[in-house]
Amino acid sequence: MEALKKKIIDEGIGIGTEIVKVDSFLNHQMDVAFLEQLGQAFAERFAGEKIDKILTVEASGIAIACMAAKSFNYPKVVFAKKMAPNTMTEGFYQSEVKSFTKGTVSIIRVAKNYISKGEKILIIDDFLAHGEAAMGMVDIIEQGGAQVVGLGAVIEKEFQGGGKRLADGGIRVESLAVITSIMDGNIQFK
Amino acid sequence: MEALKKKIIDEGIGIGTEIVKVDSFLNHQMDVAFLEQLGQAFAERFAGEKIDKILTVEASGIAIACMAAKSFNYPKVVFAKKMAPNTMTEGFYQSEVKSFTKGTVSIIRVAKNYISKGEKILIIDDFLAHGEAAMGMVDIIEQGGAQVVGLGAVIEKEFQGGGKRLADGGIRVESLAVITSIMDGNIQFK
Repeated sequence: MEALKKKIIDEGIGIGTEIVKVDSFLNHQMDVAFLEQLGQAFAERFAGEKIDKILTVEASGIAIACMAAKSFNYPKVVFAKKMAPNTMTEGFYQSEVKSFTKGTVSIIRVAKNYISKGEKILIIDDFLAHGEAAMGMVDIIEQGGAQVVGLGAVIEKEFQGGGKRLADGGIRVESLAVITSIMDGNIQFK
Repeated sequence: MEALKKKIIDEGIGIGTEIVKVDSFLNHQMDVAFLEQLGQAFAERFAGEKIDKILTVEASGIAIACMAAKSFNYPKVVFAKKMAPNTMTEGFYQSEVKSFTKGTVSIIRVAKNYISKGEKILIIDDFLAHGEAAMGMVDIIEQGGAQVVGLGAVIEKEFQGGGKRLADGGIRVESLAVITSIMDGNIQFK
């Protein structure tokens, strides 16, 4: 998506070889009008698919998932939680998510009520890196007996392998911008 | 707001005397079409105010803040972060937020870039309880030399005192539903 590539070039900051910082419009400050355009782009990519629900993970996936919902004619959006809140009193599905950058393992959870057998669920997230969060969400959807329609990522860092890993697992991946390398502040796109 | 009160009565679950669980539409699963209506209600409450930016706090404030942005003609939305991510390389404003239910103190942060001197900022959040998160956001806005337009909360638990505390501090509070007590699963509204 050209408008996104331009936005990343104009506002994104490459850090080291692994990180692109886009917190002026995507994951700290949010340009909601622009996120609507991204949502529309996801709807075009997945046109013709039946989408009963959108699943994302807190925190920075929430905005783009909600803005995308509009373009998919308002399916419910669920975000997986990284901490079990005191209101999560009933059963939940959970999956382990490893963070390569932080070297930690965390658990994401979705209440069983919000994944129904046979539902067709689209995963939406801001970044696709190693694919750990996405694989965790796939796992949760499958635990609930629902079906993964695919994964829509705003930015895929192709060199971190998550896209290939998901595709190898039979998951359709649609990334609106694909970064092939980050070096000396220079961001290269596919 | 009657539609919200009805939704809380139909779908909300009162737990003990302090908690109302609304995770079917607000803070785990999100009914985005309904959140748009709530956003519109905030725009009506704050009609005539100049709003340069909306500030909220992760994670469950993000959806409602983004959906409200549309009704305010798309000001940028910023969410305060509860953890300092590895991409937060520059300076930030921070404030301590005490959790009464958990007995913990956490720190919320906003990058200095995203609060500008003189900006008029509206705080939006899902819940107003003791007012700790809201006071933290007021503190951050004031550190940045910006102005607090007010606080819009979807649900205020009036008996926890946050609304009074903010009003006593000169902050305009607009809550779309005000709960006066929770007992034996019974939720009472003002």
